[in-house]
Amino acid sequence: MSGTNVLALSGGVGGAKLALGLTHLLPSDSLTVVANTGDDFTHLGLQICPDIDTVIYTLSDLADKERGWGRASETWNFISAMGRLGGEDWFHLGDGDLAMHVYRTERLAAGDTLSEVTSDVALQLGIGARVVPMTDDTVATVVKTPTGELSFQHYFVRDRCEPTVSGFRFEGIEAAAPSPGLAASLNGNLDAILITPSNPFVSIDPILSLSGVGDAISAAPAPVVAVSPIVGGVAIKGPAAKMMAELGMPTEAREVARFYEGLIDGFVIDRRDEDQAPAIEAIGMAVWVTDTVMNDLEDRITLARECCRFAEELAA
Amino acid sequence: MSGTNVLALSGGVGGAKLALGLTHLLPSDSLTVVANTGDDFTHLGLQICPDIDTVIYTLSDLADKERGWGRASETWNFISAMGRLGGEDWFHLGDGDLAMHVYRTERLAAGDTLSEVTSDVALQLGIGARVVPMTDDTVATVVKTPTGELSFQHYFVRDRCEPTVSGFRFEGIEAAAPSPGLAASLNGNLDAILITPSNPFVSIDPILSLSGVGDAISAAPAPVVAVSPIVGGVAIKGPAAKMMAELGMPTEAREVARFYEGLIDGFVIDRRDEDQAPAIEAIGMAVWVTDTVMNDLEDRITLARECCRFAEELAA
Repeated sequence: MSGTNVLALSGGVGGAKLALGLTHLLPSDSLTVVANTGDDFTHLGLQICPDIDTVIYTLSDLADKERGWGRASETWNFISAMGRLGGEDWFHLGDGDLAMHVYRTERLAAGDTLSEVTSDVALQLGIGARVVPMTDDTVATVVKTPTGELSFQHYFVRDRCEPTVSGFRFEGIEAAAPSPGLAASLNGNLDAILITPSNPFVSIDPILSLSGVGDAISAAPAPVVAVSPIVGGVAIKGPAAKMMAELGMPTEAREVARFYEGLIDGFVIDRRDEDQAPAIEAIGMAVWVTDTVMNDLEDRITLARECCRFAEELAA
Repeated sequence: MSGTNVLALSGGVGGAKLALGLTHLLPSDSLTVVANTGDDFTHLGLQICPDIDTVIYTLSDLADKERGWGRASETWNFISAMGRLGGEDWFHLGDGDLAMHVYRTERLAAGDTLSEVTSDVALQLGIGARVVPMTDDTVATVVKTPTGELSFQHYFVRDRCEPTVSGFRFEGIEAAAPSPGLAASLNGNLDAILITPSNPFVSIDPILSLSGVGDAISAAPAPVVAVSPIVGGVAIKGPAAKMMAELGMPTEAREVARFYEGLIDGFVIDRRDEDQAPAIEAIGMAVWVTDTVMNDLEDRITLARECCRFAEELAA
């Protein structure tokens, strides 16, 4: 895959796993991973960017593989002491993880951009791929529910995704510019654009909704390939399937394909959803059937390779 | 000692130990401990108040008794991760301790005063005594050295007190007002003012240098008693003796008495310095000889009791 330039759109866990697979296939200077920042929030005075951090920790092999977020071998003295002081302790910040938030908050306060801080941290942790935030501006995903709106982390962590979802909006999206790294990648010589199996509504859609980004991806000469986060009717991780059901969508891979209609050229589905291939092809996109569940590093590399092969085939 | 109102001036370790002894003698509503804030600094974007925290941790029994600062059973994942990210890691912030700095920084940013935050934290941790900062304004102790000035924590922690000291100044002291709690205590019905065996130059002098505070203490009808931090020619903890030598002062208890001349009515010295009593009395103050080294809780209570008896005797 030498010389192949790939842009991967990522949320947290699923996106980070596929990105890790890609780093094992591609030369480090040919991969750009753009992370959703709609989940970002200021908490306890700290600027927290969950998706950037999951990507960074995964690519630097610091991630906790069981938990799915935060760092391995983590301790929790900070958040326990915070509760004892009467502070908010519903968002579990690990002691080591906290260094990221404190470091970032200090640098942002000093006038550095999120792109600069992210790039420096990635370099410091030995990550070769470019990891870029979707924007250096503030965008906040808001979850609409029948009883009112919730900020994303209140919905996701504090309320454990329990409220029924009726829609989403991305506060600040109109005024937000794509980050320099995202813009450079879109304007560069791309061989493939991969939409990782992160949550379509709250991880990928914020990136696509940035000014010009969805259009640039639709119009890109490079093939655009998405991987279904829905396998066998359920989401591998997170609330994607629950959200689909609440939004009145059948929880099937083909519904995700329909969500990306007009944007992508090919859709990767799991073998157990092979029967949906004709319906997806009928939407007007190619389908690639493979094993999409990434349990170990080997799975991640294999899925990354399959995606690249699919893109090559689409480009041919 | 019921009904006795005591104001104790404190820096870090030595002051906190004596304050703890006092809490075992006095009804909780009759003790005010005013902590030096000249050591405070903003580090990694966090507002750090070492002396307030040492007092708070000591009075709430959270302090590490061996190390002399920070919390017991502490972990260090944060500062280790910070170093890995390329951030500053010379100031060792423990994981549990960090909750205090993050909580305080957030509340101060929201517009609360340092007095309010300190009072709430003390209450939350079950401390009965009033713990108050010397001021809610910013005062920064600057250490003068032959090669230039150093901020206090750079001198104290980063440079391990190695630079030679030629003097001190307290930046912002002219504009700083005594905190409401300190002012209320000084204006109230005090039975004793205790200057704990904290560093005279960098822990006690900032408090005394606040507008009106030195004068109010000198003029107070209540007896003012100080405890020598120098015992047998050395400082029990910290750089007091080294500073004295560098400032051209003999490192003896009587030199500390001379430093407080005109301010205090009585000076408490250790038995091993009993031979200095006549010289100290010649300055114009009473002397009380006892065991002043506080190794355990019993020592702290005993020294607190001796100080109160001395004050009672002076008031008689």
